[in-house]
Amino acid sequence: MDWVSVAGLVAAFCTTVSFVPQALKTIRTKDTSSISLAMYSLFTFGTLTWFLYGVYTKNLPVSLANAVTFLLSATILFYKIKNGSKDKKAMS
Amino acid sequence: MDWVSVAGLVAAFCTTVSFVPQALKTIRTKDTSSISLAMYSLFTFGTLTWFLYGVYTKNLPVSLANAVTFLLSATILFYKIKNGSKDKKAMS
Repeated sequence: MDWVSVAGLVAAFCTTVSFVPQALKTIRTKDTSSISLAMYSLFTFGTLTWFLYGVYTKNLPVSLANAVTFLLSATILFYKIKNGSKDKKAMS
Repeated sequence: MDWVSVAGLVAAFCTTVSFVPQALKTIRTKDTSSISLAMYSLFTFGTLTWFLYGVYTKNLPVSLANAVTFLLSATILFYKIKNGSKDKKAMS
């Protein structure tokens, strides 16, 4: 495997697994005050769309990576929505 | 353009621009207490690697989208590192 392909795999690995520590932190602390609701709404919808795109184009890496990121992102979004009114109060 | 290509573009748009509201919120509030340092370290490195991968493979959409996400992610990481000791104190 040439080093350009290795770089692509390293990049895919980093951007996918990066959501693991954020999801763990959010589950552990239940604190979402500085997390953006708009970001996780867009990102969760985006990864779901990427996943469906991967399924329809029969692209396993795209569908697999985005299935993982979708679940992690949806978990963070769940806590953000659950904390909704509390987070708004903390802002004021 | 078929609807599968449209879905791919919608997905790419959502996952790229999703970092705009998070960066704006972080710049405005300067609060990074519930943001994961590990996530933004990995994600910033990952988008930089994606960008270089896009440049070397002459893939304009990959290099362009990841240049944007890298800048947004690096901005959030900058504030997280700046708030380092303050965030740790808030946790205890």
